[in-house]
Amino acid sequence: MRVEIVAVGTELLIGQTVNGNAAWLGSRLTESAHTVVADQAIGDDHDMIVAAIHLAMSRADAVIVTGGLGPTADDLTREALAAVADVPLAFDDAYAQALARRWLERFGTEAPVSNFRQAEYPLGAERLTNPKGTAPGLVLEVEGVVIVALPGVPAEMEALYDDQVGPMLRRRAGWEGSRLIRVLRSWGIPESTVGERLDDLFLVDGNPAMALLAGDGEIKVRLMAQAPTDVEVSALLEPVADEVRRRLGTAVFAVDEETVETRIHDLAAAEGWTVAVAESLTAGLVLHRLTDPPGASSVVMGGMVVYAADSKRDPLGVPEGVLAGGLVTEATAMAMAVAVADRFGADVGVAVTGVAGPGPADGHDPGTVCIAIHTPRLDTAGTIRLPGDRERVRRYAATATLHHLRLALEGTPWGR
Amino acid sequence: MRVEIVAVGTELLIGQTVNGNAAWLGSRLTESAHTVVADQAIGDDHDMIVAAIHLAMSRADAVIVTGGLGPTADDLTREALAAVADVPLAFDDAYAQALARRWLERFGTEAPVSNFRQAEYPLGAERLTNPKGTAPGLVLEVEGVVIVALPGVPAEMEALYDDQVGPMLRRRAGWEGSRLIRVLRSWGIPESTVGERLDDLFLVDGNPAMALLAGDGEIKVRLMAQAPTDVEVSALLEPVADEVRRRLGTAVFAVDEETVETRIHDLAAAEGWTVAVAESLTAGLVLHRLTDPPGASSVVMGGMVVYAADSKRDPLGVPEGVLAGGLVTEATAMAMAVAVADRFGADVGVAVTGVAGPGPADGHDPGTVCIAIHTPRLDTAGTIRLPGDRERVRRYAATATLHHLRLALEGTPWGR
Repeated sequence: MRVEIVAVGTELLIGQTVNGNAAWLGSRLTESAHTVVADQAIGDDHDMIVAAIHLAMSRADAVIVTGGLGPTADDLTREALAAVADVPLAFDDAYAQALARRWLERFGTEAPVSNFRQAEYPLGAERLTNPKGTAPGLVLEVEGVVIVALPGVPAEMEALYDDQVGPMLRRRAGWEGSRLIRVLRSWGIPESTVGERLDDLFLVDGNPAMALLAGDGEIKVRLMAQAPTDVEVSALLEPVADEVRRRLGTAVFAVDEETVETRIHDLAAAEGWTVAVAESLTAGLVLHRLTDPPGASSVVMGGMVVYAADSKRDPLGVPEGVLAGGLVTEATAMAMAVAVADRFGADVGVAVTGVAGPGPADGHDPGTVCIAIHTPRLDTAGTIRLPGDRERVRRYAATATLHHLRLALEGTPWGR
Repeated sequence: MRVEIVAVGTELLIGQTVNGNAAWLGSRLTESAHTVVADQAIGDDHDMIVAAIHLAMSRADAVIVTGGLGPTADDLTREALAAVADVPLAFDDAYAQALARRWLERFGTEAPVSNFRQAEYPLGAERLTNPKGTAPGLVLEVEGVVIVALPGVPAEMEALYDDQVGPMLRRRAGWEGSRLIRVLRSWGIPESTVGERLDDLFLVDGNPAMALLAGDGEIKVRLMAQAPTDVEVSALLEPVADEVRRRLGTAVFAVDEETVETRIHDLAAAEGWTVAVAESLTAGLVLHRLTDPPGASSVVMGGMVVYAADSKRDPLGVPEGVLAGGLVTEATAMAMAVAVADRFGADVGVAVTGVAGPGPADGHDPGTVCIAIHTPRLDTAGTIRLPGDRERVRRYAATATLHHLRLALEGTPWGR
C-alpha cells in the first residue's frame, strides 16, 4: 500500500518538537512492505490540514494523520476530517459520560468543558480505543482512501498503531508476502567510489532496491527486496548482498545492527584479549565509544587521555627519546599503544595522537592524525589527514582509530 | 517571510533518519521572525521533488530544500531545481578542477567521475561555498520565490544557513529593526520548577518572548525581543533577563554561547590551575567534553579511564583499603580525584564512578553515580541517582560531573 503521513502541530514547524512520529511510522510501514510516499508536517490550521489530507489522498492508498486530537482549542484534526469526508461531527454520549466519571474519580472535580471535544467524531468514522490516553483514534474511508487519525503523543500513537492500525493496513493491503532488509556497513572507501563500484546494482525494477547512506566516515549500503515468500525474497536479496560484499572487500565490517564497537568486542572476546587505549586529540571519545556496548568491562580495561604534551612521558611512560622525534609521529603513537597496554595489563594497546585544530601544532597541520595498534600478533601504525573543523577531526579520528583496531584484530595491517 | 522546508531523502520516509534538519531550520527561522508554513519530506524521486517544490512555491515566499546534493545517482535535487526553473544544468569547470586537485592530494587517485555531479548547477543559480563539505548550496529565484538548496548533512546545512542563508533571508524580508536574543543556561532545577518560577514572565504580547528548552539536564531560558533600535530592544530585554537570573540564582551558569566547558576553562585559567579527570562509567566523555574548546591543553592535562575494577587500584593508585569499601562510594570517588591529580601533576582532580546499567553492579542500582572534586581550596563529593537507560545515564553523569566541577571552581561545595 502507498501510505502518506500527515503530522499536525505548530510545535513541529517551529522546531520545538522533532517529528519522531514520522520516522517511527516510516520504519514500521516499511517493515510491513508498505511504501511511504511522503511526509507532511503542518500547523494547527483547519484549512492547511484539509489541504494536506487532500494532497495525500491524491497519491496514496492510506493517509495517517498524527496529532490534533487533544482537548484544546488548537486541536483541529476532527473538524478537518469531517470537512474532508463532507459529513457533520457526531457526539459520543457514552464516551463523554465515561470521561466525566473518570475525571471526577481521579481529580475530584468536574472535567473542563473543552475535554468533551474528544467525544466528537466525523459521522461514520470508526473510533479506536486509546489504551494509553483519552483521545480515541479515528478511521474513515473517503473516495476509496483509508484515513487514520492518531494522537500525537508518541506512546499513544505507537500503541494504537501496533495494536490496531498496523494489522488493519496489512489486511487491507491483502499482503501475504515477505520483505527483507539487509544493511551492509563499510568504512574506508569514499561514498562516490562505493557508488561507482555498485553502479550497475542500482536495479531499474528496484527489487532489491539499493540505497547508500553516509555518516561519520561510514557508508551503509541498504538493500530491500520483496517477494511472495521468505524463500523467494532471500533468493532475490542474498546474491546482490554477496556481490556488494565482494566488490567492497574488507571495507564491509558489519551487517544490520552490528557496529564497529560490537565487532571489536566480538573479535577481542574470541581471542580472549583485553584492550587499553591512549588518546591525545580525541581525548576520551575512543574509550567512550568502545564502552558503549553493555558488558564492555569484560574487554575494555580502560586507558589514558594524555592531552598535555608532558603527560605522554609521565604518567603514560613514552620514552623521552621517542617524544623528541615529535608528538605526532607513528613512532610516538606506537610507543603510546605499547605503554598503555603495559600500564593497564591489557593484551591490546591502541593509541591516537594528532592535531585537532583550529591551528597547526607541533609543526603539523590540523587534521594530521597518527594511529597505532599493538596486539599479541601484530604491531601496525599509520598516518591520516582529515578535513574539516576541530569537532569533525576529533570525531572522524575516533572512528578511524576504531576501524584500524577492528582491522588489526581481523589480522589486517595498515594499508592492506 | 513565509518559508516552507522540503527535505529530500528516502531514508527519511523509511524512518532510517529522523528529520532533525526541519526542526533545526524551524527553530532558526522562527527566531528570525519568519513563519514556517509547512515541512515536506519526500524520497529520492525527481518528479516528487519537483512537485513538492511547486506546492511549496504556491504558498511560501521562500523554499528551503535539504538533501539530494551529494555525488551519487540518487542525489537529484540539482536536476529537480533545473526543471522547476526551466533552465538547463550548467557545469562549473573551476570548481571541478579544484575538486579533482583536492581529491588527488588527499587520496592519491583520480576522483570518481560521479563526484563531478557536484559541479553541476541550474543555469543562473548562485552557488554557496560549503565550508564543511564538498557539495555547494544553491540559491535561485523562480516566479518571485527564492529557492535555497542545502546539503542534508546537518553540520554542513547548519553552517551554510547560519553564515549565508539566514542573513540573506533577513535582508530579503526587509527586516531593518533590531532583534536581541539572550539565552540563559541553568542546571540543577527541574524544568517544571523553572517554568513555575518564571510563569508570570511569559508575556502576552511576546516581546520579549520567552521559551524554555530542556536537554541533557540543562534548561535554557531563551528571551527574544524586537524593536526599531538597539537601545529600545535592550531596554525591553535586559530587565527581564535580570529578573530570570535573580529567580534562578546560581543555577544560571552561562549566557548565550557560553557553555559549562568554556566556563570551567575561564574559572580554572583565572586561578592558573590545571585539571585532570578519572572516569569510570562515563569512560572518557567528561574528558572529551572538557577538551572541546580550542586551546584546552593549557588547562586540561589529561586523565584516566578506569573502566575495569582492577584499573582503579593499578595503574590509577586508589588504595586497596578504600576500594574494599566499594567501587561506587564517595570515598572511592574522592581517592580517584586525588590520585589522578597526583599522577598528572594537576592542581584540580575530578572523578566520577557509578553504574551505567543495564543491570545493577557492585550492589548498586543502575544510575547510582558518585562524583568528587579536589581543588587546592576545596574537597567535595556527593552521590546522585539518574533515571533512564545506559546511554542516558552516561550522558547525564558526564554533565553532572562538569557542573559539580564548575560549582567547586566557583567555591560552592556539594549541596549548597
